[in-house]
Order: sequence, then structure tokens, then C-alpha cells
Amino acid sequence: MDTREIKLSGHIIDSLTLPKTLDLIMDMGGDFEILDVNIGKQKKDVSHAKIRVIGNDESHLGEILDELSEIGAVISEIKEIELVPSTKDKTLPEDFYSTTNHPTQVRYNGQWIEVEDIEMDCMIVIDPESKRAFCKPIGRIEEGDLVAVGREGIKVEPPERPRGKKGVFEFMSSEASSEKPVRSIVKNIASEIREIKKRNGKIAIVAGPAIVHTGSAPILARMIREGIIDVLFAGNALATHDIENDLYGTSLGICTKSGEAVVRGHRHHIYAINEINKAGSIKEAVEKGVLKSGIMYECVKNNAPFVLAGSIRDDGPLPDVITDVIQAQDEMRKYAQDVDMVIMIATMLHSIAVGNILPSYVKSICVDINPATVTKLADRGSAQVVGVVTDVGAFLPILYESLEGLECIKD
Amino acid sequence: MDTREIKLSGHIIDSLTLPKTLDLIMDMGGDFEILDVNIGKQKKDVSHAKIRVIGNDESHLGEILDELSEIGAVISEIKEIELVPSTKDKTLPEDFYSTTNHPTQVRYNGQWIEVEDIEMDCMIVIDPESKRAFCKPIGRIEEGDLVAVGREGIKVEPPERPRGKKGVFEFMSSEASSEKPVRSIVKNIASEIREIKKRNGKIAIVAGPAIVHTGSAPILARMIREGIIDVLFAGNALATHDIENDLYGTSLGICTKSGEAVVRGHRHHIYAINEINKAGSIKEAVEKGVLKSGIMYECVKNNAPFVLAGSIRDDGPLPDVITDVIQAQDEMRKYAQDVDMVIMIATMLHSIAVGNILPSYVKSICVDINPATVTKLADRGSAQVVGVVTDVGAFLPILYESLEGLECIKD
Amino acid sequence: MDTREIKLSGHIIDSLTLPKTLDLIMDMGGDFEILDVNIGKQKKDVSHAKIRVIGNDESHLGEILDELSEIGAVISEIKEIELVPSTKDKTLPEDFYSTTNHPTQVRYNGQWIEVEDIEMDCMIVIDPESKRAFCKPIGRIEEGDLVAVGREGIKVEPPERPRGKKGVFEFMSSEASSEKPVRSIVKNIASEIREIKKRNGKIAIVAGPAIVHTGSAPILARMIREGIIDVLFAGNALATHDIENDLYGTSLGICTKSGEAVVRGHRHHIYAINEINKAGSIKEAVEKGVLKSGIMYECVKNNAPFVLAGSIRDDGPLPDVITDVIQAQDEMRKYAQDVDMVIMIATMLHSIAVGNILPSYVKSICVDINPATVTKLADRGSAQVVGVVTDVGAFLPILYESLEGLECIKD
Amino acid sequence: MDTREIKLSGHIIDSLTLPKTLDLIMDMGGDFEILDVNIGKQKKDVSHAKIRVIGNDESHLGEILDELSEIGAVISEIKEIELVPSTKDKTLPEDFYSTTNHPTQVRYNGQWIEVEDIEMDCMIVIDPESKRAFCKPIGRIEEGDLVAVGREGIKVEPPERPRGKKGVFEFMSSEASSEKPVRSIVKNIASEIREIKKRNGKIAIVAGPAIVHTGSAPILARMIREGIIDVLFAGNALATHDIENDLYGTSLGICTKSGEAVVRGHRHHIYAINEINKAGSIKEAVEKGVLKSGIMYECVKNNAPFVLAGSIRDDGPLPDVITDVIQAQDEMRKYAQDVDMVIMIATMLHSIAVGNILPSYVKSICVDINPATVTKLADRGSAQVVGVVTDVGAFLPILYESLEGLECIKD
Repeated sequence: MDTREIKLSGHIIDSLTLPKTLDLIMDMGGDFEILDVNIGKQKKDVSHAKIRVIGNDESHLGEILDELSEIGAVISEIKEIELVPSTKDKTLPEDFYSTTNHPTQVRYNGQWIEVEDIEMDCMIVIDPESKRAFCKPIGRIEEGDLVAVGREGIKVEPPERPRGKKGVFEFMSSEASSEKPVRSIVKNIASEIREIKKRNGKIAIVAGPAIVHTGSAPILARMIREGIIDVLFAGNALATHDIENDLYGTSLGICTKSGEAVVRGHRHHIYAINEINKAGSIKEAVEKGVLKSGIMYECVKNNAPFVLAGSIRDDGPLPDVITDVIQAQDEMRKYAQDVDMVIMIATMLHSIAVGNILPSYVKSICVDINPATVTKLADRGSAQVVGVVTDVGAFLPILYESLEGLECIKD
Repeated sequence: MDTREIKLSGHIIDSLTLPKTLDLIMDMGGDFEILDVNIGKQKKDVSHAKIRVIGNDESHLGEILDELSEIGAVISEIKEIELVPSTKDKTLPEDFYSTTNHPTQVRYNGQWIEVEDIEMDCMIVIDPESKRAFCKPIGRIEEGDLVAVGREGIKVEPPERPRGKKGVFEFMSSEASSEKPVRSIVKNIASEIREIKKRNGKIAIVAGPAIVHTGSAPILARMIREGIIDVLFAGNALATHDIENDLYGTSLGICTKSGEAVVRGHRHHIYAINEINKAGSIKEAVEKGVLKSGIMYECVKNNAPFVLAGSIRDDGPLPDVITDVIQAQDEMRKYAQDVDMVIMIATMLHSIAVGNILPSYVKSICVDINPATVTKLADRGSAQVVGVVTDVGAFLPILYESLEGLECIKD
Repeated sequence: MDTREIKLSGHIIDSLTLPKTLDLIMDMGGDFEILDVNIGKQKKDVSHAKIRVIGNDESHLGEILDELSEIGAVISEIKEIELVPSTKDKTLPEDFYSTTNHPTQVRYNGQWIEVEDIEMDCMIVIDPESKRAFCKPIGRIEEGDLVAVGREGIKVEPPERPRGKKGVFEFMSSEASSEKPVRSIVKNIASEIREIKKRNGKIAIVAGPAIVHTGSAPILARMIREGIIDVLFAGNALATHDIENDLYGTSLGICTKSGEAVVRGHRHHIYAINEINKAGSIKEAVEKGVLKSGIMYECVKNNAPFVLAGSIRDDGPLPDVITDVIQAQDEMRKYAQDVDMVIMIATMLHSIAVGNILPSYVKSICVDINPATVTKLADRGSAQVVGVVTDVGAFLPILYESLEGLECIKD
Repeated sequence: MDTREIKLSGHIIDSLTLPKTLDLIMDMGGDFEILDVNIGKQKKDVSHAKIRVIGNDESHLGEILDELSEIGAVISEIKEIELVPSTKDKTLPEDFYSTTNHPTQVRYNGQWIEVEDIEMDCMIVIDPESKRAFCKPIGRIEEGDLVAVGREGIKVEPPERPRGKKGVFEFMSSEASSEKPVRSIVKNIASEIREIKKRNGKIAIVAGPAIVHTGSAPILARMIREGIIDVLFAGNALATHDIENDLYGTSLGICTKSGEAVVRGHRHHIYAINEINKAGSIKEAVEKGVLKSGIMYECVKNNAPFVLAGSIRDDGPLPDVITDVIQAQDEMRKYAQDVDMVIMIATMLHSIAVGNILPSYVKSICVDINPATVTKLADRGSAQVVGVVTDVGAFLPILYESLEGLECIKD
């Protein structure tokens, strides 16, 4: 038997740190002794607990401590983070530490320093010169990188339950059902957006082609023009159908106004790609006057950055599409750490991709007509995502209406 | 080997009567010889075909003819319909004829007479006194009823492809996808409704409780008040939550305005039932001023008939609910044959129930966020149903908007 | 401002009683002061807490206490339960207490007595003569019944987290995903069944017609014959297609062996109903040798009770179907309180109906290919239900295999 | 008004060429005159029709003829194919011809020549030296390529209805429902596989990670070892979880035997990638004895080619993953034209990608627990795909069982 003391602090009862700690220990076949517990008497008071964790042996105890560290438990006796250099590009030392998407600090040189660019399933690498800690995916690890291993000297801060009534994000986060009043949910999201915009915050959209199919592209275009949406993450399909819609009034050959199939319409997306290929790029198509409206047009006109990531099912693709998916991920990372909210609409693939690289404190909304998409996103670790199960063609118009009068300052 | 001649006529090529005939014969292991075929040269011309159907023996041939009769093929040599009396209530003679939901005529006393109240999976019963033919479900067969057997003297008329461009119903009927521009689909439905209302036609709604949960109850209430909707088919849940919404502003305890759970709200539906039980019935609750708005209120105020059919999962139920399901079916039958259009929203159970008793020429729309509901409805034989996959909370407001300016004459 | 003291005891940290208590108070805009807390030091130790709950006024405080009572908080100062007689059949006094599905005790005549036949959304009625407390649905309340009101003298016991590793039911309960190893999940369920059968426990099945469509009817029939399944809850469709399958080898006209449509097959279910109508009942059909195998046959032969509840979409129905849904509910209640496990397969309607009348300690499994069915069941209050998302046609054969060698003693 | 004569021949009634022709003309607002029609009298006889198509003007007529050409109508007066050179890489001349996935011939130098490597939404390019015609996606068009334009000299052959009873593929193709007897459907697929293997045909699998999650990886590994499966199309996730399963017994951290979450399991997929990165590639990991079993192992050991296509949501990825999606498509094309059957399991992304590059005569089966996946695949043009809605974890074991005794000759 081996034991170790841990400390918990904060709103450890209602933010579930203490319950989860006991739960985990029991689930993993360990035992515990509560050494000291100090429950805050009033709402604002923080609580503290000191617990002796008991494992069958050192390795068992290590496993338990490992899991506990992810939910915010801190080993009482503070040691420095342990570092081992990588011996080869893209490879990791034994017992490497794998990150959560919560803010994380490491104890280095007697200091707690913040891990920069935190995202889940990555490694912590220390730069001894700048004394900074970075979050790096395995594919970017280089020989010689000092990679954190073990579980000493690492502190994770999961989000806490807010005092008082829960906000829209806490309130909705557990639910993804189609049997909700969509208008009132959208109103809540709209008021969140207003607050973000008031403080000049940034909002990204992850957009699937159904936005165009369902006739909502003009609304999204307007939201970009008005500075509500700052960044666009999408794929070849969204951009192609948006351009198809601008040039021919169809999406996948269906008229987005009347809903009817248009003669020869199923060729329009190839026509659209052809036109952009001729111009050289989306930007050049805008400049040459070929492309005159739509989502992509407004991105170009308003300097809203967009990342079009390639996918194996792409036709074409458009010249602006980054066909190498790892390059595309890195391009997405440039913007993801910087946004205050992400709205994911009708694309499981891109939503999971963006969800993977977001810190847990970025407010995320996933809108899809299929409840399974939202569930899957949460299963993949993006637990903070709020799901709205509704028709994509209805969501954006209602959201835009609810934002009436909002004025955004654009950079 | 046994053979028999059949005749086809009408737009037998593009309405698929001829292709389906050949397909069925081949699928059933039979053979055919085309004796004569006269294809209409121009769009408006009808075509005719005479085909010799070849089966392995009499019984095999009978089976083939049986199937062919359902798609509109007529046996060339016209005989009278064969009738056998039922020997016991709710029981049928051997080889009874089972109806389709298409208009059907029978040859009786040398005359072709229309089968009244046609619906699928029922029997044809002849009243020798009035010389009328009726469609009866097995549960209503009485001893002595003259039941049609075999396949002689029966003529079925499946719907034909319209000449010219297809209307919204033909155009949409094959598709149920969420990736459609819902606004334009709704516009098409709205123009169909305008036409029906112009000729004083009747529209029924089959309504699930999600209409209330999603905040659309006031819209439906208005549509009843304005005479757009003439008949309501629903269950205990729709009525209970509508009344809950009127009395307490919630549906299943969720505020239909804000989408938030209300304190003690999960008791509201029992409160609502309690209030109606105290009043005696929904009508009395309206008269006593207990119930002052909503779907049920408008039904009472505007003499729009409603049928509330019981279900095994009901709480309560309300005193107006018909708890015997067979009685409820009969009550629904009183109105179903008389309507020109049925809009089915967010209830698979009641939609299939109503679909079962509708003739194929009644225009039916099924609105659900789950594509499987629409598919299942078609699988159960209601092939004429047009599916719209969208958020119920978005559908009714958009439909109502699209109907602006419509004035209905109420009885 | 108004305050009241409550007490919590048990494993209040990891069973979440304390966290939920604080959460609820804050969510409802109340405040709290923790007066005393005594956290059990070791795994087996129970914990205690005494909390002062603070509301804005008496009514606000009352609302908070109301909600707290449902999660197991007990008002410190013990008073008797308050009773008000009903003044009319099916109607309730103001402020009536609405039950949860957890074991509940009431303080009557200075004694804590158990509420019998507990199920959710019902009322507590005291019989002053026998001094017993009963759970009654609103529809069964009679004039003069003494109905519990307010929140004094009521003690609810929600399930606690088991000490040590969680069992299969706790472990699975939160999840309903198709991306799981179905074979190992089924093995866990099978071992639970073995334990129940070892102690002569009873297992009910709630069965949808897809069991027959997917070819699994013979397996279920065998499970009834071997005494694994003791009670059957189903509708007209399951019974009709089972009988259709026994008489004609088809289900909805599809051969259950080959999966192909059978000639004239879509009439078979009417044939099947006709045969049972001729015999008089399912039992008589078995006795007369008309029905020779299948699910219903085995129920009759092995005296396994079955309840066939009518639904508005029924064809026929069979003479054994209880067409009045409230009568059918009562018939189901006769068996529901008595079972140790319920397996719900491929029927949302009947599963919710049975879920409504089950106490929370009955182990329930819901098997469906559609994840939404499981979610909906939990939404309707049956939170204890474990969901398995899989093909119904695969589930029963694998379950039966996993039960090999199990011998059940039949009554 | 402008007119043109077209000819149809083959089983134009029951294969629906004639009905679709009339339907299309009417739908597009055109008119027709049937000049001559010669319906085959017996089952084996082919039919012929000559039709005058009437459009409002030349362009309208052109549009109609364009659509008709895709369903097999041939312009009576045979002209040569019209060719226009591309003026820039990846760009197309006006009015280019966009391919279907049906076998296609072009009239060049007075000869009908077959278009090689046919797939949908591509262009026809003629090599004047070799006098061969190729199918090329827009992204591969080079300056100077002679691209087919207009609609003269092009003959498309859609699949015809087989004489006699339909085979399993024709019989199932219209249906995707979970309420089917999965065992009998799988038996039909198995007998199709037996026939393909008897004539040394090739079978590809498109495999999603749910195969590993659901515990079916060992079955697929065996099918590769035994030569039943010849080619694997998948992504990083399938390969990573397969390797995770081989090295640690888990998939996404869940034990594939017991279904339980394993301590630290959510790091296993990064461990797995790390191990392969250390070895250099999957092949080297097999050779070095690191990887000792599983799907990828058997591919390496049995020289079954595999294409791992990158996706934007990939962790890692494995060194064998082709991160450039266009390169990955080309790699897939190397094998797709060569296979006789494709089984697509639990991956919409890769299934659509492979569906895009398959000719219509390759038998394709799509297995998924979500009916929407199958529908979407058909919507994207892969109409020949047969859908099986079932649990992936049940499908492969049943299929393998049904193939017992099958011996394949491996190259």
C-alpha cells in the first residue's frame, strides 16, 4: 500500500471537485481518508479539503493521482515538473503528461507558470531559455524538446460553478433536445453575443454547407459584413456552394430561393470551382468582380480571416483550400486561441476539429438538426459545448433578428 | 400454365402503371406477352395496353393478378364482384379482398359503383338494399356482412402523374432531408393552403406536444381562430401542455417564453389536468373562464372539432380524452374523409393513426425533426405523404407568415 | 426573508446530495449557511450536514424546500404530514404533493410509514383506518381521499452511489452511444440477469414489433419458455406480427427468414387477426391448436402474464388487446411493482408507459437503434434507465447466448 | 420552337428509360411527340422508341437533351464529340460535359470508344494520339487537354433491370430501415461475396473507427488474412484505434472486451501513435515486432493495399496517413476502379469519398446504425449503394459466420 496527500480548494462541493475525487478513487479501486475538510459556510466562501489517497502500490497510486490531477486536485507536497527530452521528432518519452483543455500551470524553477495555447490531448513542452511552457501536439514535437512527464508540479483549473443563478451556458450545457423553444434559446445566445461584442470580443463560426443549402448564406454574409462574426472555419463545400449560390442562385443544383432543382444544376458547383480557378483565388475573384456577394465575398471585403480545410470527399477543390490537413490544423490554431465564442453549425467534421483545439473556457455552441452530432462532440472531450438541436435554416435568421441594433466595432 | 388478359389505360408510361406491371410480373416469377400497346403520341393523349399475364398455375396467376389489381390493372373480361357473408362478428371469409387507399370501384349488378370511405387494409362490404359499397375495418365487420373476395370486378385508380410541371406535392413527395431551404418549401405549402381555402376546403392538423414545448402553440391557436385549421387530431399530451401553457406559462415545466425550467414546474401538467377535472371538461373550463387562450380554447370558441385520442403513456388524462382507442379511431373517421389536407406535426403515433384512415388523394404533410418519422409513415403505406424535416418550433411561425392576408370563411 | 433548517445524511458528497442541495438553492435565487458538516473520513462512513436555507419570503422558501425534498433533504424539525380531503373524484386539493419514483416515507401518527406502490407524478393518499399510505394517480383519486399537501413529514430516499467500484447499471447509466462493444455490454446485463434469477427474481419485457420484424421472435419465445422472462408488456402490433409470423412466416408481409417481401404478404396481419377473432382469443387459439409457437404461444403455455395495451394506430385489434388505455395502465400496474428488472425493446410508447409506473430501484434497460428513444425516456423522468443503442435483431440472440446454462425455477 | 429526335433502346419500359424521358421533358416544360415505339412482346425482347423532343428554343432544347443524355437517351443523328482545349490548368471550357458514374462511350473519329476510369462529376478528355478517352477531375485538368463539351456524340448506359427475379442488390437498393431481419440480409450479401470470390473478384472495405470501438476489429483482421477483403480505405482514426487495441486492448480508452473505461485509457491513442512514430511506419512496426495483430497488421502481412486518408480532426497522425487529401484521393483511385464490391462501414466521410470515385456497376453496401448516412450517400449521387441499418458491432461477426467455408485465392 502506498499513500499520498492531495489538496482541493475552491467551490469544491457544488463544482463537484470533491464528489468527483471520491468517486474516482472508489471507481479505481483505491481508498481514501479525509484528513481535513473546511466547507465554506456561505455562498461566496471557498472550501478546502485535504485527503489521503490510498493505492495498492506505487503504480496504482500513480494512476489514481494522474486522473485526480485532471479534475483539479493538487498534490500537497509541491515538487517541480519533471522533464524528459524527446529523442526523435514526433516521439515522446515514457509516461508523458497528456493535457486537458483546462487552464494549466506548471511548477518550473520554483514558479507556477501558465501553459500557453492549451488544448486537449497535447504535450507540455518547456523552453528553458524563455522559461515559458507550451502546449504542443505530438506531430509538432521535435527532437530535444523538453516534455513534461509524470504528475508532479502540474495544476489544472477546471471551470467552477458560478455563484448565483447559472448563465445560459451552464444552464443549457447538459441538454440537447429538439423539444425546446428555439426562439428563447437563441435569445439567450444573442445576449451572450452582445456582451462579447460590447467588450470587443471575437466570435468564430464553423460553418457546414447546409447553411447554404437551407438558404441562410445571405444572413451569415451579413453577420460577417457587420462584424458580428470575425473568423470563418469551413471546408471546400461551404465555400463552393456559397460561390455557386452567388453565381447561379443554386446550392448543389437546388435553387436556394424556391427549393426546386434547376436544370443542369448539379454541374453548377463544378462551374463555380472553374470560375475561381480561372481567377486564381477567391480574393482575386472578388477583386476582378467575378464574385459579388455571399459569405466568402464578405470575408474578403471585411478582412475576416477564413480557413478552408480540405477533406477527402472534396470536389475540385477551390484554390484557397488547404489540402494538407495538418497544415490546415495549424492555420486554424492561429485563430482558435484568440476567440471568445465559437458557433458551430451543421458540420460534425469541422466542429470536432475546432473543438479539439479550443481551451475549455471558450464558449461554444453546436447547432445541428441531428442530436447525435452534439453528443459526439461532447464524447470527444469538448464537454463545454452547448448543443442546440434545430433546423439550420431557421437558426441563423432568428439569431440575426435577435441581434437587431447590435453595432460592432471592426478592426 | 394459366393465363389471363389484363388492360391498362391512362398515362400508363410516366405514371408507371405499365413499368410496374412488368416489374411485378417478373418479380413474382411470372411471364407476360404484350398483345397490344398504344402509346399516346402527345402529352395529353392517354395510352392503352393489353397484356397476357402468364402464371405457373391458377393459384400463381391469381396471386399475380391480385397484386396487379392494386396498381390499376383491370382484368379484361369483366365479371361481377364476388361476395361471401361473414359468419361471425369481426371475422372474414377466405380470400377476402383487402383495400388500398386509392379510389376503388366494384362491379355490382352490372354497374361500377364507388366504394365509400375508402381507406387501406380494410374490407369492401356491399349493402344489397341500398346497392352501396362500403369500406369497413375488420373490427367493424358484423355477422352477415357481404364481404368482397377474390379479385374480379374490382377497379383501383392510383393517382396519375399530372401533365406539365409537377406541383409541390409531386415534386417534394420523394424527399425528406434536412438540407433543404425550409422557407421556400413552406411557401409552396402555403400556396397550396391558399388554393384549398379559396374553394372552402378543409384542413386538419395532427399535433404533437412538441408544438407547445417549442413555443408554437400561440401560432396554432391563431390559425384555428382564423379558420385556417378546421379540425384537430391530437392526444392527451398536446391538450394538457397547451392548457398548462395557458394557465402557468410552461410546457412540461419549462417556461415557453424563456426556455428555462420553472420552480415546481414539473407538477404543472398535473395542476392543469386538475383544473379541467374540476371544471368538468375543456368546454366547461372555457365557459367558466378558467381557460382563456390557447389551442384548445380556440377549438372550443370557434367550433373546430377536436379528437383527443388516449395513449398508454397518458397522465390523467383530461376528461375530453377518448380513452378507448377503437372509439377514438371511429371518432377520427368522422372527419378524416372530409378534409382536403392534413398537416402532421411532431407525432409519429397520431400521424400513422391518421395516415391509416386517409384516402390517397388527401394531401398530407408530415413535419418532424427526425427523418425516420417521415420514412416510417411512408413504410406503413401512406406513400402520398410529403415529408418536411425541420424544427417544429420554426415551421409554424414561418408557415403563418407565409399565409399573411389569407382570409377564410368559417362555417 | 425566511429561513428553515434542513438535514442531509448518507453518502451525501459522492451521491451528490450535498452538491445538488447547494446547486438548487443557488439556482432558485436562495441563499444558505452551512451550520454543521460532518464528512465521513473513510469510504464506509456516512456524512451529515445541517444547512440553514434562506428564501426571500415564506413562499420562496417553500418552493426551495419543495425541490430539496425530492433529492433527499429532510426538514430538521419533524412535523406530521398534512392531509386535505379531495372534494370531488379526480380532483386534488391546493398544494398537493407530487411523488418522485424513489422510495418515500411519510410521518403519520408519530410514525414513519412507507408509501406503497410508489411511482412518479402521483399523489400520496392516507387510509386512516389501516394507517397505510398509498401512491395514487390523479385519475384514481376519489372524493374524500386524504391527499398529502405541502412538504412537511415527507422523506424521499434517492439511490446512493454504491461503495467500491460501480456495477454495470451505475457504470452504463449515463451513456447511450452506438459506438460501444455491444457484446460486452450484453455480457454485463446477462450477469445481472443471472443474479436476479438466482434469487428467484422477476423480469419483465416491454416488446415492440421490431422484435418480430428483425427475426428475433423465436429467441424471445424461448426466453419465456425457459422462465427467463416472466411478464410481457406489449401492444397489438407485437402480438399480431408474432402470430402472423407463426401462421405465415412473415412480419408485416416480409419473410422473417429471408427478408424478402412475400406475395400478398401485406394482408397477412389481417389474416392473423381474423384467425384469432375466429378462435375467440389468443388463449383459445392456442388451445384449439391454431397457434402453435411464438411469443404469445409461450406466454399462454407457461402462464407468463401479458398485458396488450391498445394504441390509436392499431389494426384490428386482437381480442386480447385492452383498448381502454387507462384500464391497460392499471393492468400493467398489477405487475410492474413486482419485478426486479425491465428490459424495454424497440418501443418508445410502451417503454415510457412502463417507465412511468416503475419505482426507481427497478433495474431498467432500454434497447433501441435510435439514441433519441433512450434520451427521451430519461427526459420523462425515468433517469435510472440504462440505454443500449444497438440493432434489436442482434441484441436478443447475443443476450440469449450469454445466458447459456441459466436455469430458472418457474412458479 | 426547336426540335430534335432521340432514340431509346433496351428494356426501356421496366428499366424506366422511357418513363423518365417523358417525365423529364414535362418537368422541364418541354413537349414531345412519340414518333415510333416498338415494345418487346416478351420478357427477353428489347424495346425501341423514337421521340421528337420539343423545346421553346435552341437553348431550352439543349438543356433538355443534356438531361436526357444522362439517362441513356441518344440523339438520333450521330455526330462526333465536340472537343475544346483547356486554356489553363484546372480550368474548363464553356459548356463542358460533366460525367455520370455510368459506363459512357464517345464518338471519336467515327468510332464509339469507351471512357476509361469513369466516375461522376468529372470531365471527358481525349488523347488524340492514343485515341483513348479518359475521365478526369477538374483538379487534374492541364492546359491543352481536349475536353468534351456539349452533348453530341456521347452515349451513357445506365444499369438495366435484370430479367426475372431481382437479385439482392436490386431488391434491397431502395430500402434503408432498421426494422429488417439483419441476419437474412447479411446472408444475401454473403452469397454475393461468395460469387465474387469464386471468380477471383476483389472486395474493398471502407472502415470507420466504430469497427474497433464495437469490438469487431479481430473479425475484420481475419477477413483480410483469409483474403476475403482485398483493399482497405480508411482514415487515421481506424488505424490508430486498431493499433491502440492491439497494443493496449482499448479503443479510445475503452476496453474492447469488457466495455469499461480503462485507467489513463484516453491517452492510449497518443501512446499508439507514439509507438508507430518511433518505429517509422506501420510496416516497420510490424517488421520490428511492435505490432503483432489487428487490421493494419494483417494488411501488412498479407500485402493488402491500404489507403489512410487524412482528415482535419486527426490526432497525430500516423506516419502512413496521407495528409494531403487530393493526393489521398488519387491513391484511392488506383484501387477503386478495380474492385467488384465495396463494403462501407460506419464512416460517412470516407464512404462518400469512395462513392464519388466508383463506377455505378460496382456493388456497394453501406452499413451504419444511422439511416441518415445511407440516405446522404444516395443523395450525393451514389444511388447504387445498398443500405443496411444495423449495429456495426453485430454486422461483421454475422457476415463472417455466413461466409464459413469460403476459401479465397490470394495473389
